[in-house]
Formats: sequence, structure tokens, C-alpha cells
Amino acid sequence: MVLSIVGLGLGDVEDITIKGFKAIKDADIVYLEIYTSFLINSDKHKLEEYYGKEIKEVDRIFVEEQNDTLLNEAKDKNVALLIAGDPFRYPLTPLSSLTTYPYIYYPYATTHVEIYYKAMNSGINVNVIHNASILNSVGITGLQLYRFGETVSIPFFEENWKPFSFYDKIMQNYNNNLHTLCLLDIKVRERSVENIMKNKLIFEEPSYLLPVIYNFEFGIFPYYSNINMNTVTHYHNYYYNFTIILRFKIGKIDFMVIGIARLSSEDQIIKSGKLEDLLNFDFGPPLHSLIVCSPHLHHYEQLFFNHYS
Amino acid sequence: MVLSIVGLGLGDVEDITIKGFKAIKDADIVYLEIYTSFLINSDKHKLEEYYGKEIKEVDRIFVEEQNDTLLNEAKDKNVALLIAGDPFRYPLTPLSSLTTYPYIYYPYATTHVEIYYKAMNSGINVNVIHNASILNSVGITGLQLYRFGETVSIPFFEENWKPFSFYDKIMQNYNNNLHTLCLLDIKVRERSVENIMKNKLIFEEPSYLLPVIYNFEFGIFPYYSNINMNTVTHYHNYYYNFTIILRFKIGKIDFMVIGIARLSSEDQIIKSGKLEDLLNFDFGPPLHSLIVCSPHLHHYEQLFFNHYS
Repeated sequence: MVLSIVGLGLGDVEDITIKGFKAIKDADIVYLEIYTSFLINSDKHKLEEYYGKEIKEVDRIFVEEQNDTLLNEAKDKNVALLIAGDPFRYPLTPLSSLTTYPYIYYPYATTHVEIYYKAMNSGINVNVIHNASILNSVGITGLQLYRFGETVSIPFFEENWKPFSFYDKIMQNYNNNLHTLCLLDIKVRERSVENIMKNKLIFEEPSYLLPVIYNFEFGIFPYYSNINMNTVTHYHNYYYNFTIILRFKIGKIDFMVIGIARLSSEDQIIKSGKLEDLLNFDFGPPLHSLIVCSPHLHHYEQLFFNHYS
Repeated sequence: MVLSIVGLGLGDVEDITIKGFKAIKDADIVYLEIYTSFLINSDKHKLEEYYGKEIKEVDRIFVEEQNDTLLNEAKDKNVALLIAGDPFRYPLTPLSSLTTYPYIYYPYATTHVEIYYKAMNSGINVNVIHNASILNSVGITGLQLYRFGETVSIPFFEENWKPFSFYDKIMQNYNNNLHTLCLLDIKVRERSVENIMKNKLIFEEPSYLLPVIYNFEFGIFPYYSNINMNTVTHYHNYYYNFTIILRFKIGKIDFMVIGIARLSSEDQIIKSGKLEDLLNFDFGPPLHSLIVCSPHLHHYEQLFFNHYS
């Protein structure tokens, strides 16, 4: 009996590895984690059809609070837990967990690591099947992967929670001539603080940060209270929060950035330019990421940057 | 007609994605790049048997100097270029290219990026199929991927070429409380400077850096000239250069490190400890990597570190 934690890759059903596919075929129970990311050109039904298996979608409550269910099942059944990207990729929602569960101390994103740790220490036979994730697939932008500094996550801002720590990290990378991969927050199957407190299983509409406008005008930052961070618009059946791109003006830096949409899917978009240029660019539906480039690009990095501009 | 650049993943033949497998099945010509890395539990013959296709192994000369051959073929044939890991992962040999070709200016590792760029700009239909690479798969150590700083490559030292820039980068990450992934150099199908100058296609024995001992005693560094960097031993049919682990003693730091061998294969080894503890640990055959941990570990990072110790 084995618990297989299977990365699905990024684009569609065929991005799974043959090893992962076989693990699903051998599984008695198949779970699909749906709240930290998703497979771009797919959904539960497409996956079920492709695998010929029933799939149970599981959200944060199951994965983080009720994962003993899954671990107990793995003692006498083959269980597969499917995760978009790589099983141990950076979850897209480490920070929003702080906002959604403000009264619970989440030291950091334990999401899938905790299940793996518990399984190893319960004598459960556990098998991790790796796959591509945003972290290595951004190599397709032509930027050299070893020239990336610390990855940052840009969260949804809320009335009383507007953390700017990502900005310092971007600047630290920039000053060290390194690129920064910025992951844009998503919210899927999240509950409002009110509903959590009332213990109601009522979920908010899914929403995704879009690389459009993060308006830090020189002189306003860090006095951001005047900026409307909550403009929400309806778009392709999703609710977007139009808070990003980082339109830094501090120090008058004209950042070179690369916006990425639906990486590894057939309609992926890679668009480079100055922040100014990308403000009104339509990247289409999620998932989106943003790279803030280092001030100096190497020869081929510059060629790719020009190509995607 | 399409050029497919296919990532094979890390472990064995079944780590390929279904999308990648189909691209190979559709290919008229299949190339396997063998000089920047390799699939751990596999070789040309196992891959040929699995795909039911003939495979041509190609080395640095073909990929970097004669890649027009491949690009021309892709104009009227389906061509697949297979690469261990992800197509745009960090090559393991960016620095050794400087030592092997000392008279040619290699600004950085252009390896697979150049082929992709040329294809896009020649009107060739080019398709990149991503996969896992060391860069995201190290998440299995329990270290959080967003807490990694700049990746470094530790090269083979040669008589007149002993670059220590990786050390400054490790310290910069460490001082920013970030982990450092250190990729250990490999040499496969490399020619000596003498044979390059004589234009002779005579290749050296393959060699791999092993995380054993990189003896920077306090007071010796940076006066490293007394250290024998060229101890070579025969091991599991490979030649190893016993130059690594980084046994830093500067500032008396007892670094916490994690050594990784054959990641994602069935006999992968993950071993954590102080540098002192790992000096004589036998990691077995390549490929190997080393993580220098940040000074402070998060809760689950520490649990994993203890688990692997």
C-alpha cells in the first residue's frame, strides 16, 4: 500500500509523467488538491475522463486540518494525492492563509510538506512523483535560472493587512543584480473571516491577482492608504483583483519586467517590457506570474527580452 | 514539422511526461544531450528500448557549435532533442566550459536557450515540454523553495583556475537567512585544452564532483594553493574528484548542510548534518548536490532536517 504524492505539471492532462499516471491507475482513492493552484487547461472532469478514475476534490480544510483521513486510508489502500506543478512547489497562497485564518498562527506554508512528513513518520509507504513547476519552467523566458534571487509572493491586500515585505525582497535581489519571480496570490475555496468564526462552510468566489497595476507613485509609497487596492472586476468568469503590476516609481527605477500567463499551456503568454508598457496589457485568464528583471541582462537574456517585447 | 525540446525529468525512463513521450513517438530524429547532465537510472539503450526509437547521443560540440544541423532538419522533419531534467534548467557545466574552452569567451551558459532562440527566429515550429529539475525537486528535503537565494555552481578546480565566487554567494544568501543550492560540476565528453588546441576529438574520462571534502581550514583560505584539489579516486566505475563538501571554517561557522544523491531515483539519498558530520559520508554514485542551509530553519524545515540526519 502506498501514498503517492503526484505532481501534475502545469499545462494540461498530458503533462503528467508516465510514473505519475501509473500511480493513479494503481490507486484505490484519488484526491485532487484544488486550493493552492490548478492545472491550466483542465479540471476534475477532464482528469477523471483521462485517468478513467473517480477523483475527489479537496480544499484547505481537508489538506491541512483533516489530512489524517488520507493518511489512515493509505495504511491499507493505494492513495494518490494530485497536485498541480510539483508536489513541493511554493504554494501560491502562503500569505493569504494568514489573512483568511487571522487567529491561527501559520508560521509558513506547510501545505504538502506536512503530509509527507507525517506519512514518513507513520510508517506509511510514501512516494513523491516530481514534475515541472513555475519555479523551473520560467527558464523559457530566456532568463538564466541561477540568476534568480529569493522568490516572493504578492498577496491580496485587505483592509487591515497590506504587507509590503515582498518589496524589500525584490529590491534586495535587484541590488544584487538578480531577477525576482513574483507569484501572484489566488483564492479558491476560501472562507471569509466571518464565516470561519461562525464555522460556516460558505466559500468566497475564486479570485486571482492579475499583473495590471500596483500603483506605487513616488511620494505615495509607503503611504499607501490613499490607494484603492480593492477594485474588482469581472473577467472571463473570474474575479480579478486589479492590484498588480508593481509600478515602482521609488528611486525613479524603470523596472524591466516579464509577465507570464498560463505558462506551459497552449495559449501561454510571455510579454516583456518596462512596467509602464505592461500596465494595460491584457494577459487573459489565470494563472499569472511576474518577473522583475535584474538591472543588467546577459546577452541571450536581452535577446529573449527583446523577442518577447 | 516541429522541433520538440523535451525534458526527461530526473530519475528513470518513466519520469518523462505523456506529452513528451508522444513527441518522441512522432519524431523522425531523436537526439539525446549527454554532456550537461544525465538521467540517473538510465542510458541511451534503455531509452531506445522504452521509446522504440533510435537515439543519437550529442555532446557539447554538436549542441553548441553544430546546432544548425538540428535546426535545418527541423524544417522538414519532426525532431526531438531530449534533455535530462527541464529543458531550461541550470546546466551543470557553465563554469567548466570556461576551463575547457579557455580561449573562447563564454559569457554564460547559453546551452539550450540558444537553440530555442534560433528556432523561434528561423520560423521553426518549436515546442518546449517541461519537466522536473533539481531546482524544484529539492523541495523534498523539506526546505521551503521560496527561501532559496541565488543558486551556485561549484566547479572543478584546475591548476590555474580556482574560482571562489560561489563562496561569496553562499555567504550572501546565508547572511540573508536563505538556503543555497550548490550544483556540483560534472565533466562528460570534455576534451583537454591540449586536445582542443590540436583539434583532436579525444575525450577525457567522465568525472563528477562528490560532496566529500572541500577543505577550507580557517587560516588557509584563501591561500588554497597548499590544498590538493586533484585527488582522484576510482569509484563505481566513475572518476570522482574529492574536492567537495565545503568544509567552511571561516568565522567558525558550523554550517548545516544537506547532501543529496540521485534525487528522484529509487535509491536517492538525502543526508543532513553539520559539515563535520558529512565529511566521510558515502553518497554513492552521481548525481550529487549540496544545500547550505540558512542559519535559522522554520519549524517543519527543522523537523525534516532532523529526520534526514
